[in-house]
Amino acid sequence: MSIPPRSETTQPDTHPSRLRSLESSTEITVELGLRSYPISIQSGATSRTDKMGFASRLAEAIGDCTHVILIQDASVAASAGQAIIESLPHHGVRVSILEVASGEASKSTDRLTDLWGELLACGTDRRSVVIAVGGGVIGDLAGFAAATFTRGLRFVQVPTTLLAMVDSSVGGKTGINLPGGKNMIGAFWQPHLVWIDTDFLSTLPTREYVSGLAEVIKYGVIEDAEFFEFLESNIAAIIRRDPEPTRLAIARSCQSKARVVADDELETSGRRAILNYGHTFAHAIEATAGYGAMLHGEAVAIGMQMAASLSVDLGYCDAGLLTRQTALLEAAELPRSWPEADPAKMIPIMARDKKVAHGKLRFVLPESIGSVKLVGDVPEENVVAAIQAWI
Amino acid sequence: MSIPPRSETTQPDTHPSRLRSLESSTEITVELGLRSYPISIQSGATSRTDKMGFASRLAEAIGDCTHVILIQDASVAASAGQAIIESLPHHGVRVSILEVASGEASKSTDRLTDLWGELLACGTDRRSVVIAVGGGVIGDLAGFAAATFTRGLRFVQVPTTLLAMVDSSVGGKTGINLPGGKNMIGAFWQPHLVWIDTDFLSTLPTREYVSGLAEVIKYGVIEDAEFFEFLESNIAAIIRRDPEPTRLAIARSCQSKARVVADDELETSGRRAILNYGHTFAHAIEATAGYGAMLHGEAVAIGMQMAASLSVDLGYCDAGLLTRQTALLEAAELPRSWPEADPAKMIPIMARDKKVAHGKLRFVLPESIGSVKLVGDVPEENVVAAIQAWI
Repeated sequence: MSIPPRSETTQPDTHPSRLRSLESSTEITVELGLRSYPISIQSGATSRTDKMGFASRLAEAIGDCTHVILIQDASVAASAGQAIIESLPHHGVRVSILEVASGEASKSTDRLTDLWGELLACGTDRRSVVIAVGGGVIGDLAGFAAATFTRGLRFVQVPTTLLAMVDSSVGGKTGINLPGGKNMIGAFWQPHLVWIDTDFLSTLPTREYVSGLAEVIKYGVIEDAEFFEFLESNIAAIIRRDPEPTRLAIARSCQSKARVVADDELETSGRRAILNYGHTFAHAIEATAGYGAMLHGEAVAIGMQMAASLSVDLGYCDAGLLTRQTALLEAAELPRSWPEADPAKMIPIMARDKKVAHGKLRFVLPESIGSVKLVGDVPEENVVAAIQAWI
Repeated sequence: MSIPPRSETTQPDTHPSRLRSLESSTEITVELGLRSYPISIQSGATSRTDKMGFASRLAEAIGDCTHVILIQDASVAASAGQAIIESLPHHGVRVSILEVASGEASKSTDRLTDLWGELLACGTDRRSVVIAVGGGVIGDLAGFAAATFTRGLRFVQVPTTLLAMVDSSVGGKTGINLPGGKNMIGAFWQPHLVWIDTDFLSTLPTREYVSGLAEVIKYGVIEDAEFFEFLESNIAAIIRRDPEPTRLAIARSCQSKARVVADDELETSGRRAILNYGHTFAHAIEATAGYGAMLHGEAVAIGMQMAASLSVDLGYCDAGLLTRQTALLEAAELPRSWPEADPAKMIPIMARDKKVAHGKLRFVLPESIGSVKLVGDVPEENVVAAIQAWI
């Protein structure tokens, strides 16, 4: 995939009647040997009955399949789920629909136990295929259920939020929370297909859509300087959700994530840690704000600001990087600071993060746009200063 | 490993004072590429402080480790757990002990949820190591908890029953039951080490020990004719639990299982199905008898008789095979028939078995001692006759 000349993407066609006629489709492969899988990204192609549609792509990725279980967000994803169901062959495929309430509370041991029982009750066997339709919560929960039912079912991700499209649906991380720890239980379980349609974004609330842009911008900072420039030029059109630049921004983000995941599928080499740029701060922000008070992407945006300040402070990058990042986050209408940030509350939470190896604070810090490094043993006083810089 | 000349093994040294002085140790590798691991089998070496002991072998298999969680059977395995704990270094390794009641009821979603919480409460992180000490129930539950806590902890199996030593501790199958289905939830999660010490068998009740011999004999029938002959010659000494022939029988069984698992780690090629010889019948016997009324190995022995009869009936093998199998099971003091067997109850259960692909009955049938084949679409009347042959 390449970024098109700017003249094309800054004058997008936004006439609603033409949204479904776009032929454009991008396919990215996550290279994981026998577990490789495609991410297919398009605009308005889901219910097409030709080779561009979901059903055709599913048949190619999955092979034979006579039972599909759609696990979907009870509210937001209903129209996406409907498009998926309509696209499936009317004969020879039995479809079971299981609904899950949106919201982090569904990633619980209770909901998981119920879901396991529902899978059994609808006659799921080893040849059944789970299709998760919804945001990150649905994908994480349904993916973990798929990973563990009869020791593993084939699994398809159909993300319907921007955040899920560019982050959680790619890479095989699935799981649930324990009362004492987010994502504490889970499995690496790669999907057989990730199907992304920008049409699903049309009903997403603005605040949630914008929140997803934080992760998009993150990819530019951590490993794709050309993409960062593309975003600087096209952020207004992406905020308007113009299909073509939006599709390209999603595709390029997925490509970044696919590269990192291919290098470090099981988070063992350390490479995958670069995806946590801004996240050590963000998790502490979310936890002190109370989960749900701030959207994940909003916390990531503020966390990226703190991480960039920390990097400037420690001399790993110049202040120009911070200036460009701040400007792009601002243009994306994302928050850059948080008046309630309290280092005394945040630092103990950061020290408990499960990515911390035996208590040592470790950060992903930018060296330049498109390049980051892992830094361990950062003095606490610098961390405090980085937090205070964005209060 | 080779089977020693019969003159050695039919005159075993059973003097109790010498049980702990045996130097003999066998190591088998389960060949799974990056997930390869050793099965170490010995008699009375666990608490040794030299390179033959558990602690030394653990350090070699695991590398650095500062936190160990022993998940153990609350009753039977206590002495084995004590031997493990005593063997560990007194400095630099924190040991947490979690107890699980023996019995199938512990393989439940409730007990799993509690265990996840207990792991969190004892400060488990990604570098912690889970050691499961007990029978199959403990290994399956602890293994699944290890597979899923922070998306996967390193894991060691220390089986204390014969059945767990020769079957469930090798091969990476972990999991729990749902109210409507045994082993319905789980993961393939390979241990880093399987540590077997025949000393752990000394307190095992006779009925449970003998039950485990059914799986031992199974390996001879399905893929190791020489081992079957060894068992025919040495079964009396093995029933007496003489350490050397017992250790060899365990080692040879593990070697069989390791070969099959290496060929088909994730149960995808069909090869692993040969391990289910006798099991399709056995699961139906266990279910109609009520779980717990009959031990698993007892049901497997009867199921092997039914499968062998079915094979003779369908012309896949001659009656001599059945005669030899019957004689060996009898010499092992295992049941060969079940007066309450009811085809009308068993066949519907066999059709629901999760290994059944879309409702078709499939059996592992012997062709000769040491060789079996998968046979699909067996007429129901032949299955009925095979059950009735052993009422």
